[in-house]
Amino acid sequence: MAAHGLTILGVDPGLTRCGLAAVYATPDRAVRIRDVGVATSEPGEELAARLVRVADEIEAWLDRLQPDAVAVERVFAQSNVSTVASTAQVAGLAMVAAQRRGLPVTLHTPSEVKAAVTGNGRAGKEQVATMVARILGVDKVPRPADATDALALAICHAWRGSPATGVSEGSGDGTAAQRAWREAARRAARSPRRVAAARPTVGR
Amino acid sequence: MAAHGLTILGVDPGLTRCGLAAVYATPDRAVRIRDVGVATSEPGEELAARLVRVADEIEAWLDRLQPDAVAVERVFAQSNVSTVASTAQVAGLAMVAAQRRGLPVTLHTPSEVKAAVTGNGRAGKEQVATMVARILGVDKVPRPADATDALALAICHAWRGSPATGVSEGSGDGTAAQRAWREAARRAARSPRRVAAARPTVGR
Repeated sequence: MAAHGLTILGVDPGLTRCGLAAVYATPDRAVRIRDVGVATSEPGEELAARLVRVADEIEAWLDRLQPDAVAVERVFAQSNVSTVASTAQVAGLAMVAAQRRGLPVTLHTPSEVKAAVTGNGRAGKEQVATMVARILGVDKVPRPADATDALALAICHAWRGSPATGVSEGSGDGTAAQRAWREAARRAARSPRRVAAARPTVGR
Repeated sequence: MAAHGLTILGVDPGLTRCGLAAVYATPDRAVRIRDVGVATSEPGEELAARLVRVADEIEAWLDRLQPDAVAVERVFAQSNVSTVASTAQVAGLAMVAAQRRGLPVTLHTPSEVKAAVTGNGRAGKEQVATMVARILGVDKVPRPADATDALALAICHAWRGSPATGVSEGSGDGTAAQRAWREAARRAARSPRRVAAARPTVGR
């Protein structure tokens, strides 16, 4: 009998480009791509319209891929307040969309993501991309970088939360990510769902 | 015939306390309170749940008061990134909720709000509160401060956008606030709506 897996949606928040990646992960640490892409909005448009555009796309992904859990990159200080604000806004919209669908939402920091996929929390973009491709068993890593980051985030969530992981440092009840995994696994077990074959639509 | 007025919802974004105030404003600069209050969430709860709680409340206000326009305070640098992020997230949720209802959304900076109600962009809290009470013709300004700020924001929007305003500095097509006012007035004219008597529910 195959191990029971979960679909995880990774969201790398951004207003101009928001990376989105859904992976199917099993407790034995195998991860494959279900879909990957980028939600975009035009810098010339008004902020409210741009936020709605990206939120609509995130919600369409949630409804189409029906993930068991959602991982969002935690927003940190960046070069200017405007970037922090709009990135945080997209992250907030993703969190609300997931929460309203009853899905567990977990935030991961960029260094947690890098550490999960490369073993080094300060790894460069290239190293992260190489490892993402290797883990997923694909020849080339999807572009743009936002899509790669969303994939790395989803992998990070799968591995940090997985019962079989050697990455997470939790004990007792485990890390928040492990609790989220168990919660998602319980949900998935209650309502088993067919997982479509991996069909990456890179470059959408 | 009475001048045609608009209901404006002011949103002073915040995760623990989000000020909400609806005013009815006429082009002659008369403004009265329709409702004022605060949406809250518990600091102990998870972020996604808190965001949903505040978003639900903002949406309930939009649906109940059916404003013609929404004014949101623009988020600026604050003491720490976490506060900027959560304040920006609530602002983003308000913008998306308004935009999805087809309502014009305008951002005003704190100094624009202070300048609009006191004539001084650096006025203190006390002075703003005094002027808000005077403009609205009420004895005491509603508490907490977040509610006062939301009222000041709604007044600012009314006056900056009003055709009769002496505050706005626009020429030609006018300021963004004036365009938003005209747009809201056109919408309101297409679908005239009964305005309930002023019924402040302070301290909710």
